[in-house]
Amino acid sequence: MCELLGMSANVPTDIVFSFTGLMQRGGRTGPHRDGWGIGFYEGRGLRIFQDPRASSESEVAQLVQRYPIKSEVVIGHIRQANVGQVELANTHPFVRELWGQNWCFAHNGQLAGFTPAAGFYHPVGDTDSEAAFCDLLNRVRSTFREPPLIGQLLPVLIAACTDYRRLGVFNALLSNGEWLFSFCSTKLAHITRRAPFGPAQLKDAEVCVDFQAETTPNDVVTVIATEPLTANEQWTTYTSGEWKLWRGGELQAAGRALDC
Amino acid sequence: MCELLGMSANVPTDIVFSFTGLMQRGGRTGPHRDGWGIGFYEGRGLRIFQDPRASSESEVAQLVQRYPIKSEVVIGHIRQANVGQVELANTHPFVRELWGQNWCFAHNGQLAGFTPAAGFYHPVGDTDSEAAFCDLLNRVRSTFREPPLIGQLLPVLIAACTDYRRLGVFNALLSNGEWLFSFCSTKLAHITRRAPFGPAQLKDAEVCVDFQAETTPNDVVTVIATEPLTANEQWTTYTSGEWKLWRGGELQAAGRALDC
Repeated sequence: MCELLGMSANVPTDIVFSFTGLMQRGGRTGPHRDGWGIGFYEGRGLRIFQDPRASSESEVAQLVQRYPIKSEVVIGHIRQANVGQVELANTHPFVRELWGQNWCFAHNGQLAGFTPAAGFYHPVGDTDSEAAFCDLLNRVRSTFREPPLIGQLLPVLIAACTDYRRLGVFNALLSNGEWLFSFCSTKLAHITRRAPFGPAQLKDAEVCVDFQAETTPNDVVTVIATEPLTANEQWTTYTSGEWKLWRGGELQAAGRALDC
Repeated sequence: MCELLGMSANVPTDIVFSFTGLMQRGGRTGPHRDGWGIGFYEGRGLRIFQDPRASSESEVAQLVQRYPIKSEVVIGHIRQANVGQVELANTHPFVRELWGQNWCFAHNGQLAGFTPAAGFYHPVGDTDSEAAFCDLLNRVRSTFREPPLIGQLLPVLIAACTDYRRLGVFNALLSNGEWLFSFCSTKLAHITRRAPFGPAQLKDAEVCVDFQAETTPNDVVTVIATEPLTANEQWTTYTSGEWKLWRGGELQAAGRALDC
């Protein structure tokens, strides 16, 4: 199993606090020693930091923890390898350009006997995760010639995720830089922080942050993670098959995929 | 004008020395204050570090200078903005997946009135450079259904670069992680280092490195840059229209595009 981290916010927000918690699970408080990666959207641009080494020992991870990159959408992942060697090409998140947007994806789980049809997008590495991402983009691309409205796109995303979930475990985060789509097969939780902000205590490290000092009263920040990252806050657990679409920190749409 | 940096080597090689020289030109010994980026291939994977801020002041650039990433192919760039705002989406190098490979591209120059036909790959940002990269990939993709041999691919690359050069200045580096293709419109130079290795003195910083201590006798490392980076070595200047294809540090093919 891997761990996912996502963020959606209505103002560029520093995710160092949550990232610090997640990184501890990469070889220290958790078994995910086989690499990590995080993608930060900055406007239309996407900045990716990745390392096939354990996050708790990675110099690049230390940089990210020191360096307060502010972003409205973030997708992070730490990996415990199942399919595919430990190497950069197998490290999440994965990125492809679609309609002049950077689409970014990370997955937690395993798919059995996944043999997607060939399409325009091809995996670079060997993971079932990247193969699923490419298949999902190929489906989107073959369904729409032009960028659709999100209401048109959602059924295609949900149908694809439902298919992948039939093959195993499929918890996933996907973004085009505007919205953040999350799909839960077995394990995902979220918290939405807004005024009045309070202090938060990381579960995995001796770190506490007072969000009131870091935010303005209008900030809305949603953090999504495989398991709650803080000990003193109330996280909401996704149910199996549940999907949520976030934009600007707010829930824009939600539902539950039909059981297989 | 921007500055380019490329490397092709027959063993994973640390490019920190050349990168350190280039970074000084980003706001200190040169005027290229509008961002920088560098892509390192690690096997099939590609690691990109980028910053829209001046490289001489960038914390990410400092990390890259401290962190001896070894790679067989590297493409770097520092930017002086002409077309497109200073933002991450306009920062080179640009990357797209083609046939399951990461293709990476950086460009120095400007193209006038460049309006490429629409195709599969779309620019994310506003630069003529990224538009040319997408157009080049669209041409390659529409010419070949399957990955061609390099001998089949080269005429397509050269024809595209010749067309771009007709519109302005087009010095460029392109790689799929195996080969490094370089095209000179106005300014490009290379040096191939092999045994017996000697010391090298950077032009732009008080840094000297003894390559003999850093290499084995079989290493072959070619560095390509807009202008020579060292003061005490003999660099070879490309002529206008000249292209060279590097693989494993060695020149694999070279020629000169027909004059327009």
